[in-house]
Amino acid sequence: MLWIPIDRSLDIPLIRQVYQQIRERILNGQLKSDEKLPSTRELSAELKVSRNVILEAYDQLLAEGFLVSRRGSGTFVARGAFLEQHEKALSFPPLDWCEDNKKDDNLINFRSGIPALDLFPRKTWAKLSYTIWNETSPSTFGYDIPEGRPELRQILSQYLLKTRGVDCHPNQIVITSGATQALTLVSKLLLSPEDTVIMEDPITNDIQTIFKTSGATLFPVPVDEYGMETSLLPLNNNPKFIFITPSHQFPLGGTLPIQRRIQLINYSRQTNCYLVEDDYDSEFRYEGSPVSSLQGLESDRVLYIGSFSKILSPALRIGYLILPLHLIEKCRKLKWFSDLHTPSLNQLILARFIDEGYLERHITKMKKIYKNRRDFLIHCLETTFSNKVNIYGYSTGLHLVIELNEAHFTKELLDWIEQFGVKVSPVEDHTIEKGKYNNRIILGYGHLKNEEIKEGVTRLHNAIYSLKFKN
Amino acid sequence: MLWIPIDRSLDIPLIRQVYQQIRERILNGQLKSDEKLPSTRELSAELKVSRNVILEAYDQLLAEGFLVSRRGSGTFVARGAFLEQHEKALSFPPLDWCEDNKKDDNLINFRSGIPALDLFPRKTWAKLSYTIWNETSPSTFGYDIPEGRPELRQILSQYLLKTRGVDCHPNQIVITSGATQALTLVSKLLLSPEDTVIMEDPITNDIQTIFKTSGATLFPVPVDEYGMETSLLPLNNNPKFIFITPSHQFPLGGTLPIQRRIQLINYSRQTNCYLVEDDYDSEFRYEGSPVSSLQGLESDRVLYIGSFSKILSPALRIGYLILPLHLIEKCRKLKWFSDLHTPSLNQLILARFIDEGYLERHITKMKKIYKNRRDFLIHCLETTFSNKVNIYGYSTGLHLVIELNEAHFTKELLDWIEQFGVKVSPVEDHTIEKGKYNNRIILGYGHLKNEEIKEGVTRLHNAIYSLKFKN
Repeated sequence: MLWIPIDRSLDIPLIRQVYQQIRERILNGQLKSDEKLPSTRELSAELKVSRNVILEAYDQLLAEGFLVSRRGSGTFVARGAFLEQHEKALSFPPLDWCEDNKKDDNLINFRSGIPALDLFPRKTWAKLSYTIWNETSPSTFGYDIPEGRPELRQILSQYLLKTRGVDCHPNQIVITSGATQALTLVSKLLLSPEDTVIMEDPITNDIQTIFKTSGATLFPVPVDEYGMETSLLPLNNNPKFIFITPSHQFPLGGTLPIQRRIQLINYSRQTNCYLVEDDYDSEFRYEGSPVSSLQGLESDRVLYIGSFSKILSPALRIGYLILPLHLIEKCRKLKWFSDLHTPSLNQLILARFIDEGYLERHITKMKKIYKNRRDFLIHCLETTFSNKVNIYGYSTGLHLVIELNEAHFTKELLDWIEQFGVKVSPVEDHTIEKGKYNNRIILGYGHLKNEEIKEGVTRLHNAIYSLKFKN
Repeated sequence: MLWIPIDRSLDIPLIRQVYQQIRERILNGQLKSDEKLPSTRELSAELKVSRNVILEAYDQLLAEGFLVSRRGSGTFVARGAFLEQHEKALSFPPLDWCEDNKKDDNLINFRSGIPALDLFPRKTWAKLSYTIWNETSPSTFGYDIPEGRPELRQILSQYLLKTRGVDCHPNQIVITSGATQALTLVSKLLLSPEDTVIMEDPITNDIQTIFKTSGATLFPVPVDEYGMETSLLPLNNNPKFIFITPSHQFPLGGTLPIQRRIQLINYSRQTNCYLVEDDYDSEFRYEGSPVSSLQGLESDRVLYIGSFSKILSPALRIGYLILPLHLIEKCRKLKWFSDLHTPSLNQLILARFIDEGYLERHITKMKKIYKNRRDFLIHCLETTFSNKVNIYGYSTGLHLVIELNEAHFTKELLDWIEQFGVKVSPVEDHTIEKGKYNNRIILGYGHLKNEEIKEGVTRLHNAIYSLKFKN
C-alpha cells in the first residue's frame, strides 16, 4: 500500500502534497518503473482525502510524464523517471545576509555621493506615483522602446538646455538605469580591447573598472585644483575617447575653466576622438549657477552622462546618455539587449515631477541645505584641525577633499579611524598612478546632519591624534 | 558699446540671457581676448536691467574663465576662450520619432508574450505604491545591494518553492531588470568566445543574439511537440551550458516530460555543463498546475530565470536569476557594474503585492481569461480554416503555433497579410537552422479581446485566400 503523510496544517494544498510525495518517490527510486499505483478510489479512502485530490494529483503526474495510464489495467510508474543521487534537500544552504547589509548605527560615514535621504520629496512622489499608475493608458504597461519615454526625453532636453546649456534633440537622449548603465553603454558602444581611454587621475574607481573590463588601456592625465591638466594631454596618442568630469572633478572637486575646455575640444578634433562628459552633481554649485556643459560647445563629439541619483535618489536608478546623432541607433540596440528599457512608469513619474516644477524647487531647497552643511563642515575642520588641514574642491556637489599633511591614509590608519566610529575614504582609492595623494581623504557631507558632521570631525581628529600619541 | 537683446517674454532668467550672450560672443570671436567690457553700472543702465543681473552674469563668466578682472582697471575677455568653427545651433536636428512609436490603431497584432495590459491591477498597484513611497524608511532611498531587496527575495523564494518546486535560499536570488538582463548576466557569467551553447531550435531570436554577442557558438538541438529532443544531444561536445525552456518551449509550446529532464541532467553531469532554465510564463498552464522546475531536481547545476513581464507587466522590468551557490558572488559584481541594482521601491511594491496575496489572485483571474481567449482562438481557427490548420503548443502561456500546410510564410506573404490589417510572426524568425518551419506562425492571444481574435483570424484567412486567388 502507498502511504502518504498528509499535513493539513501546512500552507500547501492537499493536491500538491500528494503530487510532490509521489513525484519524490519516483525520482529517488522508492517507486520503481512499471510499479502499479493504487486506484484513485483506494488511495483517497486510505488517505482520507476527497477522490478529486487524488485524481488531480495523478493528472499532473501523468501530464509531466511520471505516470502512465494503461487502459483497463490502471496507473503505473513510467520508465526513465528515476534520477540517480537525487536527494531532495529542502533545507536552505547556510548563507548569511551579505556584509553590505550589516549596519552600525553609531558609525558616521562620510561616504561621498549620498544625498540627504530623509529629505527625498516622498509625499509629492507618492502622490504623482498614485496618479500615474491609476491614470496612464493601458498600452504603457506593455513593452516600450529602448531609448525611453518620449515625455521624459522631451522635458529633459528642455531642462538641460535651460540649466546646463546642453544642446540636444529629445531623440538624442537614451534613458538609462542610472549613470552606471550609461557608462557601460559607452564602453560597449566605443571600446575594443586595443583602444586607449584618456582619463583624469584620480577618477572614480568603479568607472576605471567599467572601461578596463572592455580590455581598453587607461591613460592617466593628472588633475589640479581646476580639473584635468589639459596641457599634459599626450602628443602621440590616438585615444578612443577622453573621459572627463568638467563640472565637478571627482574626487578632487575642480571646475574646468573655458580655456582647458577649448584645449580639450581642439585636441579631440586633432586626434578625432570623442569626449565623454560625466556631469553627476553640478546642480549643486554654491557660487552661481551650474557651469555650462562641454556638450553644448561640441555636440557632435561629446557624449554627455547625467543622473538623478544625487539630485533625487539613487534608488530610482534613472540616468541618461546624450549622444551625437550617428551613435544613436547602435546605442538603442545595446540598450535593448541589456534590459530592453528602463521601467516605464518610473520615467513617467519623473517626467511629471520635472514638468510640474517640483525638481527645480527641490534643487533650490537642497542647495541651501547642502551649502549650510558644507559651510559647517569647513568650519568644524578649521576649528578642529586649525592650520594642519587644507580643504579642496568645495564649490560644488556633495563632498570635499581634505589634506592632512602629517597623515598617511594607509589601510591600517583607515581601520584605526573606523574604530573611533567614523569612516572616511582615501583619494588613493581612485588614483591610477599610486602614491600622489596619500594624505588626502574625501568627505561626503550631503547626507549628514550638522551634529553628525561635528561629531564625525571630532572623532576623526581623536583617531589621528591618539595614533600619534600611541606611536 | 555692448548691446545684448533682452527678451522678457522668454522663460529664461535675465541673468542667464546676459551670461549666454556674452559667452557666445567670446566663443565665436565677436568679443576678442583682452577686450574690455563695460562696467556693470554702464551695462545695466544700457540694457535697463538691475545691476545685480549684470553682476551675477559677470560673476558666472569670471568663475568659468571667460572673463578676467584686473583690479582698478575693469573686466576683460580672457585669453584662450575662443573656439574655432563654433556655431551655436540651437535648432534641433531633424529627427523623427522612431518607428516603434508609430501605431496603426486598426492593426490586429498577434504579437506573442504580451499580457492583457488593460487588466493590469493598476488600482492595487497604485495604492501599494502610494503607501510604500510614503512609509518606507529613508535609507531605502539610498544606494542598495546589487542582488536586490531582501524582502522581495525572501517572499520570492517561498512563492517559487510552493508554485514551481524551485529550491533556493533567498541569497541565491539576484533580482534583475527583466529576464533580458538575467540572460546577459548569464552570458557574462559563463561564456567566453570559444564556448558552445546548446540550444533548442527554434528558440527566441533575441536570446540567440545575446549569447552570440559573447562570441560563443550555438549548437542547435531540434524540438518536437514535447520540447527539446534530448536523444539528439551531441555526443562529442563540451558545451558551457544548455539553454532550455522546459515548462513551455518557445515558440513551439511543448512541455518537457520527466524522462527528457532526467536525460538532460545526466548529460550535464557527464559533460560537466550548466543548465539554464528559462521559465517565462508557466504560471498560465491551463491543464493542472505549473510543471515543477528543472532547478528543483538539480539545484547546484541549474541557473533558473523568471520574469514578471507576462504575469504582471513588461513595463515593470523585474525578473530574477537563481544561481548555484558558487556563482553568486561573481554575479553580484556583474550586476553592480551593469546598473548597480534594480530600482528599490519597485521591488518593495512587488514584494508587498506578493505578500498580501494579490499576485496569486491575479494569476488565478488571468488564467481563466487567457484560457477563454485561447479556447476562442482555437474555435475561430478551426471554423475558419477547418482541416487546413494544425494547432500546436496551446497547453500553457499566451501564444500558440499554427501550421497552414499550403502557406509559405515569406517576407512577401507576411507583408501581404499585414495589408489586411493583421500581423503575425513566423516561427522561422526564431530558427537556427533555417527552412524547417516555413508553414508555421506564432499567434499571441493574451492581449487580444474575443472580437479582435475573431476579426484577426478572418483577416488572416482572407489575406491567404485572396493571395491564392490572385496567383
